[in-house]
Amino acid sequence: MSKPMRVQVEEYILDLQDRIVSALEKLDPNSPPFKRDSWVRPQGGKGTSCVFAVPEASHSDTTAPTSVLEKAGVNISIVHGTLPPAAIKQMRVEHSSIPYDPDATAALPFFASGISLVIHPRNPHASTVHANYRYFEITESEDKEKDPGRVLAWWFGGGCDLTPSYLYAEDAVHFHKTIKEACDPFGTAMYPAFKKWCDEYFFIPHRQESRGIGGIFFDDLCDQPHARLAADAVRPKDPEQIFAFIQSAGNAFIPSYIPILEQRINMPFTPQQRRWQLIRRGRYVEFNLVYDRGTKFGLATPGARIESILMSLPETARWEYMSEVGTEEGSEEEKLVKVLKTPVQWV
Amino acid sequence: MSKPMRVQVEEYILDLQDRIVSALEKLDPNSPPFKRDSWVRPQGGKGTSCVFAVPEASHSDTTAPTSVLEKAGVNISIVHGTLPPAAIKQMRVEHSSIPYDPDATAALPFFASGISLVIHPRNPHASTVHANYRYFEITESEDKEKDPGRVLAWWFGGGCDLTPSYLYAEDAVHFHKTIKEACDPFGTAMYPAFKKWCDEYFFIPHRQESRGIGGIFFDDLCDQPHARLAADAVRPKDPEQIFAFIQSAGNAFIPSYIPILEQRINMPFTPQQRRWQLIRRGRYVEFNLVYDRGTKFGLATPGARIESILMSLPETARWEYMSEVGTEEGSEEEKLVKVLKTPVQWV
Repeated sequence: MSKPMRVQVEEYILDLQDRIVSALEKLDPNSPPFKRDSWVRPQGGKGTSCVFAVPEASHSDTTAPTSVLEKAGVNISIVHGTLPPAAIKQMRVEHSSIPYDPDATAALPFFASGISLVIHPRNPHASTVHANYRYFEITESEDKEKDPGRVLAWWFGGGCDLTPSYLYAEDAVHFHKTIKEACDPFGTAMYPAFKKWCDEYFFIPHRQESRGIGGIFFDDLCDQPHARLAADAVRPKDPEQIFAFIQSAGNAFIPSYIPILEQRINMPFTPQQRRWQLIRRGRYVEFNLVYDRGTKFGLATPGARIESILMSLPETARWEYMSEVGTEEGSEEEKLVKVLKTPVQWV
Repeated sequence: MSKPMRVQVEEYILDLQDRIVSALEKLDPNSPPFKRDSWVRPQGGKGTSCVFAVPEASHSDTTAPTSVLEKAGVNISIVHGTLPPAAIKQMRVEHSSIPYDPDATAALPFFASGISLVIHPRNPHASTVHANYRYFEITESEDKEKDPGRVLAWWFGGGCDLTPSYLYAEDAVHFHKTIKEACDPFGTAMYPAFKKWCDEYFFIPHRQESRGIGGIFFDDLCDQPHARLAADAVRPKDPEQIFAFIQSAGNAFIPSYIPILEQRINMPFTPQQRRWQLIRRGRYVEFNLVYDRGTKFGLATPGARIESILMSLPETARWEYMSEVGTEEGSEEEKLVKVLKTPVQWV
């Protein structure tokens, strides 16, 4: 008998975290290593945050920054607890695989594990990237000492998306192509469906623009029919197949991102380009604090680990009133804005 | 017969905006003047944003900043439109003076005018300040050409609060004392009630700390009983009395803030103090984007003027993972944090 899925996922994300952090450290051997920060959740669970930060480099207005990365976090968490009936009811709206019991009054145990990363490089020509892969389980209440309870519902979610300040079409194509190639063996309908979902999710309504140039985003992937995938579409359906898909997408992160980072981190840049990057980071903050479901859920959860949740925010961000940057026709800044207003099919 | 209240309020906020902007410009005669930016709302209304920004000063990591202010906006808006029945129903929860008609299916005209300001000085020893005074009316539908319809409900709201990065007790006392003296002639119960409300409102639950060191905050001030004021409390009740109170509070802004600004803007500061100021501004951004009702309402309103709504955000903000700044016992940073965790009675 194979190991329980929760154990397989835990082993995988631990290994993936290690590989990603190593790849980033290798890129910038002169910088301090990531800080490994393990924590325990009093309500149940644990995690390890691997964080890169160079606070000395930019709080001073006079010190020239030197590191490749400016802020980065590659975090894993493995938590469990109980969901009150109201939360289960709410969750059922989007996760139809949760068994429906209209008379349910008891809380149900849940288990969630995942890897979540955000990398903000310093060079304005190098894109910010975000990725997140997670596994969720709801189990039967454990009246007895047997552990854990039978799995009532489970699903995977996740995705990966790129947020440049300056648009390099070849970077966007490489990123999307690598992700698509990781998806295609599991069904060619997957990438287009999840690419579209990504464009819809990472959208800032009050700006009427996307946060970045997309990637993939998905949730609720399990053995049930999926609202975003046609009933007859080839797709992974059983736990092992879906987990194989998750691993394929997760493993694609390094080859999708590191090469474009290597390409851009040594490009010269001007104060004007740095300014535009900080304005784009302001938009990143706006999306994450106002719309991102994970962030909102985290901030509203008593006892949540705020430092992990707000890890995704950039080291610095900038807001200008009626900024002229990005509006000049034909400028490199305007080239990006155009694509954010109208998502592109990169592959 | 005196002028309609909406006209009186408009005249007052126009004059107050002019006085405040002049006082700020006088403070810093070497900086460029505020940019006056008048706009028209297609759905009805107009406004003038007076904005200070020195974008050249800080996007470069090497240019030393020189201006006293870093970002500031002193805005007025005078808008009108119609409220759908759902919005009226929602509004009634907090504004009991709105006539209750369970069968209401028609939209009602509204009118709103106010002044709103946020000033972010550059020196970490100088506090950020926010103030806002506003008047709201709901009127009868105008079937005929008579204009405007009879006022069905009206109220005033507003307040003023201080957000230092470094705590100077004498500044906090001066600020609160000046505001209290503006409130007291209208009833000594007003300042304590609205000071408490301010502490409750400008609170960041996920940080378990206040945004700043308070001031006053109030809403729904009209001729009806008020949830925050005892039935037998001396308080302004009719429109003219309440408007006189608003003017007293509004006029107190300059003497409450400008002297403490003058006191701090020439103090020397270190990169470490600048860093702490930017971290505090990150918290300011968190409060405004995640919790502030006005900001949330604005961002969710189609056609709202995003540039005016996000005017309140600082020029730059900073996020550090598990920052050690503010945690060292006995440090000036920790002194502020302590007060943010436990609001103080300054007068």
